[in-house]
Amino acid sequence: MLAAEAPVAIALHGGAGTIQRDTMSPELEATYRAFLDDAVSEGYRQLREGQSGLDVVVSIIQLMEDSPLFNAGRGAVYTWEGIHELDASIMHGEDLDAGAIAGVRTVRSPIALARAVMEESPHVMLAGSGAEAFALERGFDVVPPEYFATDRRRKALEAFKADERASLKPEADHKFGTVGVVALDETGNLVAGTSTGGMTGKRWGRIGDSPVIGAGTYADNRSCAVSATGHGEYFIRHTVARDICARMQFSAATLGEAARTVVMEELVRADGEGGVIAVDPSGSVALVFNTPGMYRASIDAAGRKVVGIYGESETP
Amino acid sequence: MLAAEAPVAIALHGGAGTIQRDTMSPELEATYRAFLDDAVSEGYRQLREGQSGLDVVVSIIQLMEDSPLFNAGRGAVYTWEGIHELDASIMHGEDLDAGAIAGVRTVRSPIALARAVMEESPHVMLAGSGAEAFALERGFDVVPPEYFATDRRRKALEAFKADERASLKPEADHKFGTVGVVALDETGNLVAGTSTGGMTGKRWGRIGDSPVIGAGTYADNRSCAVSATGHGEYFIRHTVARDICARMQFSAATLGEAARTVVMEELVRADGEGGVIAVDPSGSVALVFNTPGMYRASIDAAGRKVVGIYGESETP
Repeated sequence: MLAAEAPVAIALHGGAGTIQRDTMSPELEATYRAFLDDAVSEGYRQLREGQSGLDVVVSIIQLMEDSPLFNAGRGAVYTWEGIHELDASIMHGEDLDAGAIAGVRTVRSPIALARAVMEESPHVMLAGSGAEAFALERGFDVVPPEYFATDRRRKALEAFKADERASLKPEADHKFGTVGVVALDETGNLVAGTSTGGMTGKRWGRIGDSPVIGAGTYADNRSCAVSATGHGEYFIRHTVARDICARMQFSAATLGEAARTVVMEELVRADGEGGVIAVDPSGSVALVFNTPGMYRASIDAAGRKVVGIYGESETP
Repeated sequence: MLAAEAPVAIALHGGAGTIQRDTMSPELEATYRAFLDDAVSEGYRQLREGQSGLDVVVSIIQLMEDSPLFNAGRGAVYTWEGIHELDASIMHGEDLDAGAIAGVRTVRSPIALARAVMEESPHVMLAGSGAEAFALERGFDVVPPEYFATDRRRKALEAFKADERASLKPEADHKFGTVGVVALDETGNLVAGTSTGGMTGKRWGRIGDSPVIGAGTYADNRSCAVSATGHGEYFIRHTVARDICARMQFSAATLGEAARTVVMEELVRADGEGGVIAVDPSGSVALVFNTPGMYRASIDAAGRKVVGIYGESETP
């Protein structure tokens, strides 16, 4: 283990969107805040204990996958056909190793499967029934479709189908709630991971940004680690996660400058709603979103904790 | 139509790999050269006539998809299960519109389906049977599995299965042959497209770089258009197509400098084999590969034609 003063930092998100005080009960808000606070504190504790960024990112994302509060694992949104198709990806900043899965229906922890793709297959990205066959071969927990079901998300699908226009301009509850974690561990490695059920009412085997390396997830020890959430099509077209790191690497922008430029300028110009969490090698953290809110929490290298739902972006 | 002197340029590839004179008959080499020369000349003629970059990229890729010479459409490689799963993507540099499909088994022209995803769906990326359902709804040509079959590729699968190590370090004929086209049209728009059967013996619904926006394909009028071919996992992890454009956009590298740095330095360090074709807004063309050969052809804004199989990269 390295000296205790090696910086560590962590940030997480539980989705960005039209999250507003007047549409959320004080009880639900308190539930979210407590969850975010507990999760980020637990991740920070694990990092301080010397656990690897990879282990911490997976374990904290699994907490969120197992919670019905978020659109990932249990609590995932429904596709147009009324089922769940889960996407996830993970990336390690030391050697740019990465793993991703898309359109998986039966695996309890998509982020754990993405890690297995990275570590135990020659591939980076596996999809659909092929990815499930890989999971079975590896002895992964398989759950019945009911495991992912929640009344809240079923109602969102019904509302989506009732509103034709929604297919072109999805609203908050239709599509946001993706989860992600980024971490700097004691060895100086940056790791990013993202897990999601995608967007309510998605069709035709749609793949969003979450399992796309460079769009929803990126990590490179030379620049930063990023996990994104939002209207995935825009995040793919703008390679959002990679672009934030690329701006640091190629034009010497700070983490905050890079994240603000991509999310508050490039994406806003394109009408691409959403946000990102990011951490750099010094342990600075950025929490940037162009929506009314983003479920978020972080503890930076100075030990400063932020837990938020509404309000302003936080950038170093 | 703009003034006749508006620059146009086009480049195409038919895959990179261990293509060497002593393993190819003079007749086969002549066949490839004639095809590449005809295809690039036809694309240039269409651009000079004022056709859109989008139309030209699709029509020239379709010539290559329909030819058994290349690993795309007819002539695609076999998966581990002995079938064909086709990937493609296309991107327009004006507004960063993009479309991609992955793991499609029945659609004659994957690039045309990728274009339909871009133009006729709210999504960027569709996969598997969902993408096929979308194609059926749109009235796409559906072909039986035998349409894609060739003896040459079937033998490559048999050789792959006979060599256990091949699953970790695929050789030339196992995986290369992806096709791609990039174009600058008379209106100043940059377009990139890529189509492939993936790599021989791929398993578990593997998705390579070709349908991943930012990895195998990228286009942005502010920087460049790129189509890549090679060992896809490395191209995803290094977001190769986007990184070449990002280096031009954020660090003022020329097209040739950006392409060389990514392909000959970053990818070589990581042991990632392959190459790219790229064009910038002035009509300069780069054909860069770190393998012994790449099937390639281009005509730049000065009207200079290049047709090559072996040998050295060409950069402005």
